[in-house]
Amino acid sequence: MSIPSRVRLIDVGPRDGLQNEKTPVPAAVKIELVHRLQQAGLKEIEVTSYVSPKWVPQMADNHEVMAGITRQSGVAYSVLTPNLKGFEAAVLDKPDEIVVFGSASEAFSQRNINCSIAESIERFAPVVEAALAAGIRVRGAMSCTVGCPYEGDIAPERVAYLAGLLKGIGVQRVDVADTIGVGTPRKVQKALEATLQHFGIDEVSGHFHDTYGQALSNTLAALELGVWNFQSSVAGLGGCPYAKGATGNVATEDVVYMLQGMDIETGIDLGLLIDAGAYISGFLDRKPNSRAANALLTKRAG
Amino acid sequence: MSIPSRVRLIDVGPRDGLQNEKTPVPAAVKIELVHRLQQAGLKEIEVTSYVSPKWVPQMADNHEVMAGITRQSGVAYSVLTPNLKGFEAAVLDKPDEIVVFGSASEAFSQRNINCSIAESIERFAPVVEAALAAGIRVRGAMSCTVGCPYEGDIAPERVAYLAGLLKGIGVQRVDVADTIGVGTPRKVQKALEATLQHFGIDEVSGHFHDTYGQALSNTLAALELGVWNFQSSVAGLGGCPYAKGATGNVATEDVVYMLQGMDIETGIDLGLLIDAGAYISGFLDRKPNSRAANALLTKRAG
Repeated sequence: MSIPSRVRLIDVGPRDGLQNEKTPVPAAVKIELVHRLQQAGLKEIEVTSYVSPKWVPQMADNHEVMAGITRQSGVAYSVLTPNLKGFEAAVLDKPDEIVVFGSASEAFSQRNINCSIAESIERFAPVVEAALAAGIRVRGAMSCTVGCPYEGDIAPERVAYLAGLLKGIGVQRVDVADTIGVGTPRKVQKALEATLQHFGIDEVSGHFHDTYGQALSNTLAALELGVWNFQSSVAGLGGCPYAKGATGNVATEDVVYMLQGMDIETGIDLGLLIDAGAYISGFLDRKPNSRAANALLTKRAG
Repeated sequence: MSIPSRVRLIDVGPRDGLQNEKTPVPAAVKIELVHRLQQAGLKEIEVTSYVSPKWVPQMADNHEVMAGITRQSGVAYSVLTPNLKGFEAAVLDKPDEIVVFGSASEAFSQRNINCSIAESIERFAPVVEAALAAGIRVRGAMSCTVGCPYEGDIAPERVAYLAGLLKGIGVQRVDVADTIGVGTPRKVQKALEATLQHFGIDEVSGHFHDTYGQALSNTLAALELGVWNFQSSVAGLGGCPYAKGATGNVATEDVVYMLQGMDIETGIDLGLLIDAGAYISGFLDRKPNSRAANALLTKRAG
């Protein structure tokens, strides 16, 4: 195996994770979670989103959360901005990076945001332009790059098409997301390779859901392609909106456990990360959705 | 990736799995589980053990279970025989294979069976001899090949030492078990490579626990070495005796899901396998300890 010696993790728990949690989480708890993540060594954190509170009430406190974080130098704070209005609200909070999104599945795009993939990208073009003009970095989240809850398998060509559209409007880097967790190593590698037609290896991150238990083997398969940026969610926050009660985002703790065991540098203190996950899981009144965290917490308890 | 196109799975659920379950399982349920596993396409099933019912009451019905199975041609039924007395009891039930065991960790051997590794292998020598004389195949289960609950990390040299001892007494193939699930891809590859000093690639199986969520990435890493025999437990039966409430054996369903996604032939019908796991989990009054099974069961219900 010739794999990267260093990995950068982007914790999406505070945004992508909590957004899918039913229990309302106060801003102070979100802020404490972000603080604990950066204390644990996370250098990129997806903090909040600027969408209508009618759609996503959990993120209505975006300004309060962003204002409440004691920023640490060397840490990048990203936020989701689904449109120009959202971007204009976000820019007041000085995020380091904004996130726009697109689906590799036409059916998912239609059902999720009520327009075609091409239309969705056109709508994002002015957001990207405004961000770049303001000196804010832009990431593109590509959903359903392996499978779609409505269409089933997604061909790598569809992923390449979406990556090309995102590149075309100025997006600087992209996440290759297996939104419903159906991916397995070879399929995930094909989606990544399709993306690499348009983006460099440093500009591509893997975002794998653990719904079918496949996220870590997919991470290993991605590492073997040289991918070294990954997204994960502390304590596996988020669940899966397409399969109630099922696991969604892979837990950061599980990813870090694997990487550390492989002597891959992450800059993360697994003990402090587990504390962060236990903190938010405690608030949500449940165990972390992470096998490594639960095994280590059990061991600690002796 | 150059990996095998075909994998043979050995389901250890009825023995290694149920042995660690507190709820007494009647022989009829065990027999039905074995029947369902073979219907799902499993070609090797670890059925029971011949140990003192004082130590393992769950396996006291070994004769009844073995007698009750309607054997299917092409399926191998294996049993654990920890000593000559156990072997003599087992031979009456005509198993296709017996299993002896040893630990790569001295501390584990001392604490678990109260003798050194070398002594444990000496004690097994007459069992192996008797089995081979009776035309019964012999497999060696090597525990703690990556880590030990008492010693911590286990050096690959210790694995090679154990493999050499087992080869020396006539054991025909071995399982490389990560008994406490602490392994990660490179460590597991080193344990396998150490074993391959003494056994051919067709004679080595991977047996990975999912305690830290690492079992599938370890399986992928093993496949990349050419290993094509794996052990797993339907519905993740078994738990982890060293971390209460934690996951033990990797679920057969999760392994099959990954292999099918990679177009690796297993001969297994995932739907029927999930039925088998749901059957025994229903008896134990809980959900299968398998992410793939739970996701697919949710989808079915959905």
